[in-house]
Amino acid sequence: MPADGLVLFAHGARDARWAEPFAAVAARIQARRPDLAVVLAFLEHMAPDLPAALADLEGRGVTRVRVVPLFFGRGGHLRDDFPHILEAARRKSPRLVVEVTPAAGEDEAVQEALADFALRAPQGG
Amino acid sequence: MPADGLVLFAHGARDARWAEPFAAVAARIQARRPDLAVVLAFLEHMAPDLPAALADLEGRGVTRVRVVPLFFGRGGHLRDDFPHILEAARRKSPRLVVEVTPAAGEDEAVQEALADFALRAPQGG
Repeated sequence: MPADGLVLFAHGARDARWAEPFAAVAARIQARRPDLAVVLAFLEHMAPDLPAALADLEGRGVTRVRVVPLFFGRGGHLRDDFPHILEAARRKSPRLVVEVTPAAGEDEAVQEALADFALRAPQGG
Repeated sequence: MPADGLVLFAHGARDARWAEPFAAVAARIQARRPDLAVVLAFLEHMAPDLPAALADLEGRGVTRVRVVPLFFGRGGHLRDDFPHILEAARRKSPRLVVEVTPAAGEDEAVQEALADFALRAPQGG
Protein backbone atom coordinates (compact mmCIF):
# COMPACT_ATOMS: atom_id res chain seq x y z
CA MET A 1 0.00 0.00 0.00
CA PRO A 2 1.35 3.46 -0.83
CA ALA A 3 1.95 5.60 2.23
CA ASP A 4 1.88 8.85 0.23
CA GLY A 5 -0.85 10.27 -1.93
CA LEU A 6 -1.10 13.15 -4.38
CA VAL A 7 -4.37 14.82 -5.31
CA LEU A 8 -4.69 16.98 -8.40
CA PHE A 9 -7.51 19.35 -7.46
CA ALA A 10 -9.26 20.91 -10.45
CA HIS A 11 -12.36 22.96 -11.11
CA GLY A 12 -14.51 20.39 -12.91
CA ALA A 13 -16.93 20.89 -15.79
CA ARG A 14 -20.13 19.39 -17.20
CA ASP A 15 -18.33 17.96 -20.24
CA ALA A 16 -16.49 14.77 -19.26
CA ARG A 17 -13.85 15.44 -21.93
CA TRP A 18 -12.79 18.52 -19.95
CA ALA A 19 -10.95 16.30 -17.47
CA GLU A 20 -8.74 14.60 -20.09
CA PRO A 21 -5.70 16.89 -19.60
CA PHE A 22 -5.88 16.36 -15.85
CA ALA A 23 -5.98 12.60 -16.32
CA ALA A 24 -2.95 12.95 -18.59
CA VAL A 25 -1.06 14.91 -15.95
CA ALA A 26 -1.99 12.32 -13.31
CA ALA A 27 -0.72 9.54 -15.59
CA ARG A 28 2.59 11.36 -16.08
CA ILE A 29 3.03 11.72 -12.32
CA GLN A 30 2.09 8.10 -11.73
CA ALA A 31 4.60 6.94 -14.36
CA ARG A 32 7.36 8.89 -12.64
CA ARG A 33 6.34 7.90 -9.12
CA PRO A 34 4.71 4.46 -9.06
CA ASP A 35 4.98 4.55 -5.27
CA LEU A 36 2.47 7.43 -5.00
CA ALA A 37 -1.31 7.05 -4.98
CA VAL A 38 -2.30 9.72 -7.54
CA VAL A 39 -5.94 10.77 -7.87
CA LEU A 40 -8.04 13.63 -9.21
CA ALA A 41 -10.57 15.65 -7.20
CA PHE A 42 -12.92 18.40 -8.31
CA LEU A 43 -14.48 21.58 -6.97
CA GLU A 44 -17.77 21.10 -8.81
CA HIS A 45 -19.59 19.21 -11.57
CA MET A 46 -17.31 16.15 -11.34
CA ALA A 47 -16.61 13.47 -8.75
CA PRO A 48 -14.95 12.84 -6.42
CA ASP A 49 -14.85 16.03 -4.42
CA LEU A 50 -11.82 16.64 -2.20
CA PRO A 51 -13.23 15.14 1.03
CA ALA A 52 -14.23 11.96 -0.82
CA ALA A 53 -10.85 11.72 -2.55
CA LEU A 54 -8.95 12.06 0.73
CA ALA A 55 -11.22 9.57 2.49
CA ASP A 56 -10.64 7.11 -0.35
CA LEU A 57 -6.88 7.51 -0.06
CA GLU A 58 -7.02 7.07 3.70
CA GLY A 59 -9.04 3.89 3.17
CA ARG A 60 -6.26 2.62 0.91
CA GLY A 61 -3.67 3.07 3.66
CA VAL A 62 -2.30 6.45 2.67
CA THR A 63 -1.08 8.50 5.62
CA ARG A 64 0.27 11.65 3.94
CA VAL A 65 -1.32 13.55 1.06
CA ARG A 66 -0.16 16.44 -1.06
CA VAL A 67 -3.00 18.48 -2.63
CA VAL A 68 -2.03 20.36 -5.79
CA PRO A 69 -4.53 22.97 -7.06
CA LEU A 70 -4.41 22.82 -10.86
CA PHE A 71 -5.81 26.30 -11.27
CA PHE A 72 -4.24 29.14 -13.22
CA GLY A 73 -5.19 31.98 -10.91
CA ARG A 74 -6.19 32.47 -7.29
CA GLY A 75 -9.68 33.89 -7.40
CA GLY A 76 -12.75 33.21 -5.30
CA HIS A 77 -12.54 29.45 -5.78
CA LEU A 78 -9.11 29.14 -4.23
CA ARG A 79 -9.26 32.08 -1.83
CA ASP A 80 -12.76 31.53 -0.46
CA ASP A 81 -14.15 28.08 -1.36
CA PHE A 82 -11.02 25.97 -1.12
CA PRO A 83 -10.16 26.62 2.56
CA HIS A 84 -13.64 25.46 3.59
CA ILE A 85 -13.45 22.36 1.38
CA LEU A 86 -10.02 21.56 2.76
CA GLU A 87 -11.24 21.96 6.32
CA ALA A 88 -14.17 19.62 5.62
CA ALA A 89 -11.77 17.09 4.09
CA ARG A 90 -9.46 17.27 7.11
CA ARG A 91 -12.39 16.79 9.49
CA LYS A 92 -13.49 13.75 7.52
CA SER A 93 -9.98 12.21 7.48
CA PRO A 94 -8.39 13.51 10.70
CA ARG A 95 -5.47 11.10 10.73
CA LEU A 96 -4.25 12.09 7.27
CA VAL A 97 -1.34 14.52 7.11
CA VAL A 98 -2.38 16.96 4.37
CA GLU A 99 -0.12 19.49 2.73
CA VAL A 100 -1.23 21.95 0.07
CA THR A 101 0.87 23.57 -2.65
CA PRO A 102 0.33 26.95 -4.34
CA ALA A 103 -1.81 27.08 -7.47
CA ALA A 104 -0.04 25.72 -10.55
CA GLY A 105 -0.45 29.00 -12.45
CA GLU A 106 1.57 30.86 -9.83
CA ASP A 107 4.67 28.80 -10.57
CA GLU A 108 7.36 30.42 -12.72
CA ALA A 109 8.25 27.23 -14.60
CA VAL A 110 4.57 26.63 -15.40
CA GLN A 111 4.28 30.23 -16.60
CA GLU A 112 7.35 29.73 -18.76
CA ALA A 113 5.85 26.56 -20.24
CA LEU A 114 2.67 28.48 -21.04
CA ALA A 115 4.63 31.31 -22.67
CA ASP A 116 6.57 28.78 -24.68
CA PHE A 117 3.35 27.05 -25.75
CA ALA A 118 1.79 30.37 -26.80
CA LEU A 119 4.69 31.09 -29.14
CA ARG A 120 5.15 27.64 -30.67
CA ALA A 121 1.65 26.08 -30.66
CA PRO A 122 0.30 25.07 -34.07
CA GLN A 123 -2.90 26.50 -35.45
CA GLY A 124 -5.91 24.28 -34.89
CA GLY A 125 -7.89 25.20 -31.84
CA MET B 1 3.66 49.39 -35.24
CA PRO B 2 3.69 45.60 -34.72
CA ALA B 3 2.15 43.67 -37.61
CA ASP B 4 1.52 40.59 -35.48
CA GLY B 5 -0.49 40.24 -32.31
CA LEU B 6 -0.95 37.52 -29.73
CA VAL B 7 -3.99 37.24 -27.48
CA LEU B 8 -3.96 35.15 -24.33
CA PHE B 9 -7.62 34.21 -23.93
CA ALA B 10 -8.57 33.24 -20.37
CA HIS B 11 -11.74 32.58 -18.42
CA GLY B 12 -11.80 35.65 -16.17
CA ALA B 13 -12.91 35.95 -12.54
CA ARG B 14 -14.41 38.48 -10.17
CA ASP B 15 -11.20 38.79 -8.17
CA ALA B 16 -8.74 41.02 -10.03
CA ARG B 17 -5.81 39.10 -8.52
CA TRP B 18 -6.94 36.05 -10.48
CA ALA B 19 -5.44 37.53 -13.65
CA GLU B 20 -1.92 37.95 -12.22
CA PRO B 21 -0.51 34.67 -13.63
CA PHE B 22 -1.87 35.54 -17.06
CA ALA B 23 -0.25 38.97 -16.91
CA ALA B 24 3.00 37.24 -15.93
CA VAL B 25 2.77 34.89 -18.92
CA ALA B 26 2.06 37.85 -21.22
CA ALA B 27 5.10 39.68 -19.83
CA ARG B 28 7.30 36.62 -20.49
CA ILE B 29 6.09 36.43 -24.08
CA GLN B 30 6.56 40.17 -24.57
CA ALA B 31 10.11 39.96 -23.21
CA ARG B 32 10.97 37.22 -25.68
CA ARG B 33 9.18 38.82 -28.61
CA PRO B 34 9.20 42.63 -28.34
CA ASP B 35 7.94 42.78 -31.92
CA LEU B 36 4.58 41.20 -30.97
CA ALA B 37 1.59 43.08 -29.59
CA VAL B 38 0.65 40.85 -26.64
CA VAL B 39 -2.67 41.34 -24.87
CA LEU B 40 -5.07 39.48 -22.58
CA ALA B 41 -8.75 38.86 -23.30
CA PHE B 42 -11.40 37.21 -21.16
CA LEU B 43 -14.50 35.07 -21.55
CA GLU B 44 -16.34 36.68 -18.65
CA HIS B 45 -16.05 38.90 -15.56
CA MET B 46 -12.98 40.78 -16.88
CA ALA B 47 -12.30 43.16 -19.76
CA PRO B 48 -11.56 43.24 -22.60
CA ASP B 49 -13.52 40.47 -24.23
CA LEU B 50 -12.09 38.88 -27.36
CA PRO B 51 -13.87 41.09 -29.93
CA ALA B 52 -12.71 44.23 -28.11
CA ALA B 53 -9.15 42.93 -27.83
CA LEU B 54 -8.96 42.13 -31.54
CA ALA B 55 -10.50 45.47 -32.51
CA ASP B 56 -7.95 47.22 -30.32
CA LEU B 57 -5.09 45.34 -31.98
CA GLU B 58 -6.45 46.14 -35.43
CA GLY B 59 -6.65 49.80 -34.46
CA ARG B 60 -2.96 49.64 -33.53
CA GLY B 61 -2.02 48.42 -37.01
CA VAL B 62 -1.90 44.69 -36.32
CA THR B 63 -2.84 42.57 -39.34
CA ARG B 64 -2.38 39.00 -38.03
CA VAL B 65 -3.36 37.69 -34.61
CA ARG B 66 -2.78 34.42 -32.84
CA VAL B 67 -5.36 33.58 -30.17
CA VAL B 68 -4.12 31.21 -27.46
CA PRO B 69 -6.77 29.75 -25.12
CA LEU B 70 -5.18 29.52 -21.67
CA PHE B 71 -7.60 26.88 -20.48
CA PHE B 72 -6.70 23.48 -19.04
CA GLY B 73 -9.52 21.48 -20.58
CA ARG B 74 -11.93 21.75 -23.48
CA GLY B 75 -15.37 21.87 -21.94
CA GLY B 76 -18.44 23.92 -22.77
CA HIS B 77 -16.55 27.21 -22.70
CA LEU B 78 -14.16 26.23 -25.48
CA ARG B 79 -16.39 23.81 -27.38
CA ASP B 80 -19.60 25.88 -27.36
CA ASP B 81 -19.00 29.50 -26.28
CA PHE B 82 -15.64 30.16 -27.87
CA PRO B 83 -16.61 29.53 -31.54
CA HIS B 84 -19.39 32.10 -31.25
CA ILE B 85 -17.14 34.64 -29.56
CA LEU B 86 -14.48 34.08 -32.20
CA GLU B 87 -17.02 34.53 -34.97
CA ALA B 88 -18.23 37.78 -33.42
CA ALA B 89 -14.64 38.98 -33.15
CA ARG B 90 -13.95 38.13 -36.78
CA ARG B 91 -17.09 39.98 -37.89
CA LYS B 92 -16.00 43.03 -35.91
CA SER B 93 -12.45 42.98 -37.34
CA PRO B 94 -12.87 41.43 -40.81
CA ARG B 95 -9.47 42.45 -42.12
CA LEU B 96 -7.54 40.74 -39.34
CA VAL B 97 -6.08 37.33 -40.09
CA VAL B 98 -6.89 35.32 -36.96
CA GLU B 99 -5.41 31.94 -36.10
CA VAL B 100 -6.32 29.92 -33.02
CA THR B 101 -4.20 27.36 -31.17
CA PRO B 102 -5.39 24.37 -29.13
CA ALA B 103 -6.02 24.86 -25.42
CA ALA B 104 -2.85 25.11 -23.38
CA GLY B 105 -3.80 22.15 -21.20
CA GLU B 106 -3.86 19.84 -24.23
CA ASP B 107 -0.17 20.40 -24.88
CA GLU B 108 2.21 17.64 -23.79
CA ALA B 109 4.96 20.02 -22.66
CA VAL B 110 2.47 21.99 -20.57
CA GLN B 111 1.20 18.75 -19.05
CA GLU B 112 4.78 17.76 -18.28
CA ALA B 113 5.39 21.14 -16.60
CA LEU B 114 2.27 20.62 -14.50
CA ALA B 115 3.36 17.10 -13.51
CA ASP B 116 6.77 18.46 -12.60
CA PHE B 117 5.21 21.23 -10.54
CA ALA B 118 2.96 18.76 -8.72
CA LEU B 119 5.96 16.73 -7.60
CA ARG B 120 8.32 19.54 -6.63
CA ALA B 121 6.05 22.39 -5.45
CA PRO B 122 6.64 23.56 -1.90
CA GLN B 123 3.93 23.46 0.72
CA GLY B 124 2.13 26.76 1.15
CA GLY B 125 -1.11 26.97 -0.75
